[in-house]
Amino acid sequence: MMSITELLYKKRFGGELTSEEIRAFVQGVTKGEFADYQVSAMLMAIAINGMSARETVDLTMEMAQSGDMLDLSPISGVKVDKHSTGGVGDTTSLVLVPLLAACGVKVAKMSGRGLGFTGGTLDKLESIPGVSISMDTDRFMKVVDESGLAIIGQTAQLAPCDKVLYALRDVTSTVDVMPLIVSSILSKKLASGADVIVLDVKTGSGAMMTTVDKAMELAKTMVDIGNRTGRRFAALVTDMNQPLGRYVGNALEVEEAIDILSGRTQGELKEVSLQLGAQILRLSGKAKDAKEGYKLLSDALDRGEGLKKLAEMVKNQGGDSRAVYDTSLLPKADKTEELPSPRAGFISKIHTNMIGYAAKALGAGREKKEDPIDPAAGLIMRVRLGDFVEKGQSLATLMEGSLSRTEEAKKLLLDAIELGDAPVEKPQLIYGVIE
Amino acid sequence: MMSITELLYKKRFGGELTSEEIRAFVQGVTKGEFADYQVSAMLMAIAINGMSARETVDLTMEMAQSGDMLDLSPISGVKVDKHSTGGVGDTTSLVLVPLLAACGVKVAKMSGRGLGFTGGTLDKLESIPGVSISMDTDRFMKVVDESGLAIIGQTAQLAPCDKVLYALRDVTSTVDVMPLIVSSILSKKLASGADVIVLDVKTGSGAMMTTVDKAMELAKTMVDIGNRTGRRFAALVTDMNQPLGRYVGNALEVEEAIDILSGRTQGELKEVSLQLGAQILRLSGKAKDAKEGYKLLSDALDRGEGLKKLAEMVKNQGGDSRAVYDTSLLPKADKTEELPSPRAGFISKIHTNMIGYAAKALGAGREKKEDPIDPAAGLIMRVRLGDFVEKGQSLATLMEGSLSRTEEAKKLLLDAIELGDAPVEKPQLIYGVIE
Repeated sequence: MMSITELLYKKRFGGELTSEEIRAFVQGVTKGEFADYQVSAMLMAIAINGMSARETVDLTMEMAQSGDMLDLSPISGVKVDKHSTGGVGDTTSLVLVPLLAACGVKVAKMSGRGLGFTGGTLDKLESIPGVSISMDTDRFMKVVDESGLAIIGQTAQLAPCDKVLYALRDVTSTVDVMPLIVSSILSKKLASGADVIVLDVKTGSGAMMTTVDKAMELAKTMVDIGNRTGRRFAALVTDMNQPLGRYVGNALEVEEAIDILSGRTQGELKEVSLQLGAQILRLSGKAKDAKEGYKLLSDALDRGEGLKKLAEMVKNQGGDSRAVYDTSLLPKADKTEELPSPRAGFISKIHTNMIGYAAKALGAGREKKEDPIDPAAGLIMRVRLGDFVEKGQSLATLMEGSLSRTEEAKKLLLDAIELGDAPVEKPQLIYGVIE
Repeated sequence: MMSITELLYKKRFGGELTSEEIRAFVQGVTKGEFADYQVSAMLMAIAINGMSARETVDLTMEMAQSGDMLDLSPISGVKVDKHSTGGVGDTTSLVLVPLLAACGVKVAKMSGRGLGFTGGTLDKLESIPGVSISMDTDRFMKVVDESGLAIIGQTAQLAPCDKVLYALRDVTSTVDVMPLIVSSILSKKLASGADVIVLDVKTGSGAMMTTVDKAMELAKTMVDIGNRTGRRFAALVTDMNQPLGRYVGNALEVEEAIDILSGRTQGELKEVSLQLGAQILRLSGKAKDAKEGYKLLSDALDRGEGLKKLAEMVKNQGGDSRAVYDTSLLPKADKTEELPSPRAGFISKIHTNMIGYAAKALGAGREKKEDPIDPAAGLIMRVRLGDFVEKGQSLATLMEGSLSRTEEAKKLLLDAIELGDAPVEKPQLIYGVIE
């Protein structure tokens, strides 16, 4: 067996680890052969001395292969997936997946739960009465093959090495390290089996990457590394300086997705969803370019086919599909309350992560995996960056329940939303497309 | 409390930690408030991004103060100490401490046991019949004040932070890191309370610092950092490309020290001991320069005063002082055996660490703290670098006992001692003096 101390010594002095050395590292981590303090020393060495593209590809592939590799070949057609680096009011999956299925590509999606200030698709889905996110692999394949879509929790053990590394990165100040982010995200996507993968890299006050430059670098690196693994990748860099949608919370975000798919709601959430989907259809060969892909999705939406696919998915997963056509069937908050603006002014800055924490304080999110959440809780943003508000005008509507720590949420919101005297330009929505 | 993740983040990006931050780190480590994986990540960050002289001084002082600080003020006169970075056949303490006491300075020495391929002064001392290395602090002070010398085990908790850091450095490839070595060595010396400290930095095949440049850098840094703490420091850089003395083993090294103090044996061990002592007498004000210090020690040796002081120390520590005048009273090996040279040639290279491992295989050393050792076991080197040997001529005499793994020792010795056809220059003994 290769010794971890040798690997540490090499990376400490900036050496490039060979493929065999990276395999030994990943296998040792996965099997628990290395002590945490040795793994964390390696993470710090990688954080400071970096990794070459070749090392990052190797790390990604080895991490993908550290557990089950989902074989989607029983599903006919092009299998596609998307990944968001995480944000607030970011419900693109619920808008996009049904539209993609309506356009003839297959989405066999394994998703995650929310943690900290970001929501999770599984929590959102489960807020629809009856919906289950458990499905055995055979049925999952069959449903996706026939219906074109399913979103479930991880059944397989996908990239278990990443679990160990991620837990240690979190407590050793090595979260924001390019090769570690890239390999963490891509390894799970590769293990999930899709042929075409589009990445939504968020930037701004509610994103891991706070600057556009950093987000562009991450997006480019991921597409570069991703393409080297033999799958087809593209990425968008999109704004997270305010919640993407207006609704923040589980049932609330389902409702907003339904409103978009019903044609009742426009805005940034719809736009980013369609732009992501446009890249997927281009890479899948369903459209000759992104523009045509965008039109295909837009037309499917207008014809109500997205909404129909969403209802189909809800039904396939045991849920009450009537809720898709009648959002009054979704869980509702015990109480709603407006948050008045303390002064008149322009919305000059939104600390988006704090909006997420406010929704969490209301019961929409959790700190630890085992914490309970309230599907109905959350908030509706009543302002966007650059808006002018009068004193007393509502900044947000709080949707409260038994888990709500309302005063904490209000304080967070008032701190999160900055008001100024000068007009402010609205932020760009999409900063870059890496095809 | 300062958060370890903030400190990690700062050092990851090469920031200079403030005095308060270093205090928080050392206290957190000492109290066990930080997880091992966080401490090891910091060690790796320091290994790669380094520490300024100011940070190193702060780290040293904080580590020294992480446990007991020995107060030697009950002892009159100048209190002196020496430290060796460790080697094989390196018995300078047993030669030098009695000579220093004979010259009127006080040596209140707390020493350690051997581990790996290096011997430990305590193990050597205990090979003298009856000698105890335990003494309560009051008696220790009184004995040193009256007699000028005592060598005991650590009674106080000296620099406990170093214990934690050292254990982690050992398993994360961060042993050879300048600020960590310096703070580790100096913190223990500062906590031990001496006013004057001379460091013997070894270089070569049996030393932590394998190159002269690295050893010189370490010696200069330690003297620089040491002097900033308010004590008086000097350092020698000396050769460890072969065992310093001829004898390797516990009772064996005591015997060689006695032979030197009796005037029966000359050579490198004597020379390095006197040169180290010369610096101590200079810094103590007992001699106007090193040359005069050397002469004082040399004269004391010639008058038999060193031997007398050694006998006094043995007696004070409960041992049989007759052994100092009659080395036949020291433990003797069950069996001795010569190791014949497999060919004729010049001794071209000695892998000194392997000589140490050979002595360990014979029972003179230990791998883990709790392993037993045989005081009589070890070896006598019969050749020095540059010597010419005939085929069959003895390279070393093996001193065997019940713990001996003789075949392993022989193999190690034959691998350790390289023979060549061309004459080889003898190595320099002292590469530098940092006053």
